[in-house]
Amino acid sequence: MRILVIGATGTIGAAVVGLLEARHEVLSASHSRSALKVDLSNPDSIKELYANVGPIDAVVSAAGESVFQPLLALSDADFALCLTSKLMGQVNLVRFGVDQLADGGSFTLTTGILSRQPMPGSAAISASNAGLEGFVRAAALELPRGLRINAVAPGWVRETLVARKMDPGLGLPAAQIAETYRQAVEGSTTGQILDTVTLPEHSEAAPELAHQT
Amino acid sequence: MRILVIGATGTIGAAVVGLLEARHEVLSASHSRSALKVDLSNPDSIKELYANVGPIDAVVSAAGESVFQPLLALSDADFALCLTSKLMGQVNLVRFGVDQLADGGSFTLTTGILSRQPMPGSAAISASNAGLEGFVRAAALELPRGLRINAVAPGWVRETLVARKMDPGLGLPAAQIAETYRQAVEGSTTGQILDTVTLPEHSEAAPELAHQT
Repeated sequence: MRILVIGATGTIGAAVVGLLEARHEVLSASHSRSALKVDLSNPDSIKELYANVGPIDAVVSAAGESVFQPLLALSDADFALCLTSKLMGQVNLVRFGVDQLADGGSFTLTTGILSRQPMPGSAAISASNAGLEGFVRAAALELPRGLRINAVAPGWVRETLVARKMDPGLGLPAAQIAETYRQAVEGSTTGQILDTVTLPEHSEAAPELAHQT
Repeated sequence: MRILVIGATGTIGAAVVGLLEARHEVLSASHSRSALKVDLSNPDSIKELYANVGPIDAVVSAAGESVFQPLLALSDADFALCLTSKLMGQVNLVRFGVDQLADGGSFTLTTGILSRQPMPGSAAISASNAGLEGFVRAAALELPRGLRINAVAPGWVRETLVARKMDPGLGLPAAQIAETYRQAVEGSTTGQILDTVTLPEHSEAAPELAHQT
């Protein structure tokens, strides 16, 4: 397959590229550090990206900016950024990419567990992620020519936890999260929010989880 | 209680006002047909509304515009309207209303079942409704002074079905939907999406549902 990966230089995006390019042709795009450049918050930039890449079989987005901030400290601009980039940026990747995808092609977007498991500070992110999930469920009903759409909802990324000196056991390695993206691209599901199960390997809960499987 | 109802002249809003004003002081606001006027898509208009009403115990919103249109016919402006009015309009009612509410006061917003049960044509509405639900879950974790926040998710309103010559059995009367708003205002729950169960009284499914209870 010929796959366009947006956000290709991020922690998750780079892992997705590494996994997919072993068996597919991968075109990497990002805000500034890839050969292909795109500003998700700018619809014209997305249209230009698609015009540059030509026909493709799949689009994977691991991109979109958002702001983590206490509820009453979130500004109009903070909400606008989340809605313009993380939500509408990815919605527009779908709207403007439909004609670019081969029959049976797919969109795999990125949401996050804060949509359904919020925490203090996540109000704007929870809104934009949940909005994207609502869009994915609805858009799947109408995409033409067997096109599919899903969103991966990563929890904490282990590399991020390590960089922030937090408990690495709370998250999964990016390479493992990337597997969920690969399954979305190579599989046949559509309209789904795909969780990347966070197994607390280093916590006492691990044996209990093992019993349940 | 002193309760501000926004969207007070709509089918649901009018039923909510009718129900609440039997036991509370209700201040009615709407885009153009109430004594108090507000344009939800305009943050300054919301701030002005709050400045005019003074201290209140509860805010109920049955307002917010959205566009039902096939996915590939939805324009940039259609998405912008849904996000600016139905989503951010109601988010801003919370952000700008916090200081106006008495301790233990509440926000009751309006989403809709399309967030979780989409249909062809609902992509922009599903995104804005789901986004609002994500915000409600998150904001509930951070509101100060015991303030509560919930969203009611109505299905079809019977009066709307009748007006459109559709099967009235698919929906609930507005007066019955209003009960869910009343429970949200007078109860103690927070961070919840409150469904208005749609019982198909006039359809063949009704007896089956009865057996399940």
